[in-house]
Amino acid sequence: MNIRLDQAQAIVAGVLEYAASMRMKPICAIVLDARGELKAAATMDEASLKRSSIARGKADGALAMGMGSRSLFKRAKEQPFFISAATQAVGGSLVPVPGGVLIKDAAGKVLGSVGVSGCTSDNDEAAALAGIASAGLVGDPGQD
Amino acid sequence: MNIRLDQAQAIVAGVLEYAASMRMKPICAIVLDARGELKAAATMDEASLKRSSIARGKADGALAMGMGSRSLFKRAKEQPFFISAATQAVGGSLVPVPGGVLIKDAAGKVLGSVGVSGCTSDNDEAAALAGIASAGLVGDPGQD
Amino acid sequence: MNIRLDQAQAIVAGVLEYAASMRMKPICAIVLDARGELKAAATMDEASLKRSSIARGKADGALAMGMGSRSLFKRAKEQPFFISAATQAVGGSLVPVPGGVLIKDAAGKVLGSVGVSGCTSDNDEAAALAGIASAGLVGDPGQD
Amino acid sequence: MNIRLDQAQAIVAGVLEYAASMRMKPICAIVLDARGELKAAATMDEASLKRSSIARGKADGALAMGMGSRSLFKRAKEQPFFISAATQAVGGSLVPVPGGVLIKDAAGKVLGSVGVSGCTSDNDEAAALAGIASAGLVGDPGQD
Repeated sequence: MNIRLDQAQAIVAGVLEYAASMRMKPICAIVLDARGELKAAATMDEASLKRSSIARGKADGALAMGMGSRSLFKRAKEQPFFISAATQAVGGSLVPVPGGVLIKDAAGKVLGSVGVSGCTSDNDEAAALAGIASAGLVGDPGQD
Repeated sequence: MNIRLDQAQAIVAGVLEYAASMRMKPICAIVLDARGELKAAATMDEASLKRSSIARGKADGALAMGMGSRSLFKRAKEQPFFISAATQAVGGSLVPVPGGVLIKDAAGKVLGSVGVSGCTSDNDEAAALAGIASAGLVGDPGQD
Repeated sequence: MNIRLDQAQAIVAGVLEYAASMRMKPICAIVLDARGELKAAATMDEASLKRSSIARGKADGALAMGMGSRSLFKRAKEQPFFISAATQAVGGSLVPVPGGVLIKDAAGKVLGSVGVSGCTSDNDEAAALAGIASAGLVGDPGQD
Repeated sequence: MNIRLDQAQAIVAGVLEYAASMRMKPICAIVLDARGELKAAATMDEASLKRSSIARGKADGALAMGMGSRSLFKRAKEQPFFISAATQAVGGSLVPVPGGVLIKDAAGKVLGSVGVSGCTSDNDEAAALAGIASAGLVGDPGQD
């Protein structure tokens, strides 16, 4: 099972709609498939230079470890050395702050992940969850 | 001047529509802004694993050197050592085959680039050009 | 909008003049354009070996995250794991101490960034701000 | 012995003046000191995205191997595997086409190097030589 392009595009559209409705700062939203490959993405105008790299790092981290990046955030506060080492081990793209959310189907199977960056981490995560819900799928943001 | 998100999304939609109408193999289309940053992207279902990296490399190469990747293709055949060295110098993402197309406005200003990968290089380039034209912008694919 | 070469050169000259007038230690000043590309630079005689890499990392970090590096300094003290991860995610060049300053026009649009390194971080930042002001532009150093 | 900042700035100014007088395409000029560190640089407006990386690669290659990049160009045509391996060995920045020129004093001592990129390789090299001569120093471009 893997996310389809039409689902990924619906998620991106849902993230952007939520961000606009909440007047969030300019964000980037990236959807990866279950293999960690880029499926769909959009960066709002006026976003800062490397937003897509941060968004990707959140999505990469969630998939890499099989948990939403809020769980990685908790682990980073408890065991920063682990997150640092894991980042190196996976090749440098793993950003352990909220906003990297697993995309699951109704049965709990992982279909991919979403990474959002540009506003506060909490807002980024809320937008990711709104986008996933708008596509009729289930988001897993991880736990504090 | 930089490409806007709505323009980038129109280009991606135009590329996908062209690819579907021509029954091309599953492709990835990536639009970068003038800063070389990810602006919009879509990967068709059943695309092979690293299509997005190849598409990105075409788009990166075109922007890096200021010419469509068909011109880099020509140079690669004439001076393979130059392309190899340039790839290293710019950090590893530069794919010198057709399918990386500069996006220009009517005045010739570079607004960004598109990279397409998944079918033949010639078809990839045709899809990129079709997508750019569908957004009312001008594509520069480079020259043999 | 992007910084012009004559503006970037004026900023570098202003930084050097300030550093000399304050008898700062030998510094490097680097100006990046809004794309994150090298626009102008100067390294004073007797600067230590890797000053330009540190100056560049300050300028890169400010642009990458869209905030002066003093804000990244604050975040690094609060969430060191985030800065470490972001550094990896953006490719290794992000130095989160004062001295990386966004260059803005009167309307607040980001035109590029300046990185200064060689003296204390506070002095480096003061020199960056003096250089930007000398070119008639607005510097944003970030906040503690 | 090492190049001084005032000399490096004179070289950059001389390169830009030559490029403008010959109506060359927008270039980047970078001066490295004898240690391979960035001493001075300028990128003309409208240069393509990665011109500074290519210019730096020419200057790095000349210093790395102790010969102007025209000699590396000759070697690349004869032994491409050597240039490819050397590029990897030195960390990726070595561009073996004309335009990387050693800066020497009257006694033949290497003070640094200049890299120019943006126009044809021959024009880039001519601009580098003009800039070095304008600073009263001796340029060594290498040999075919």
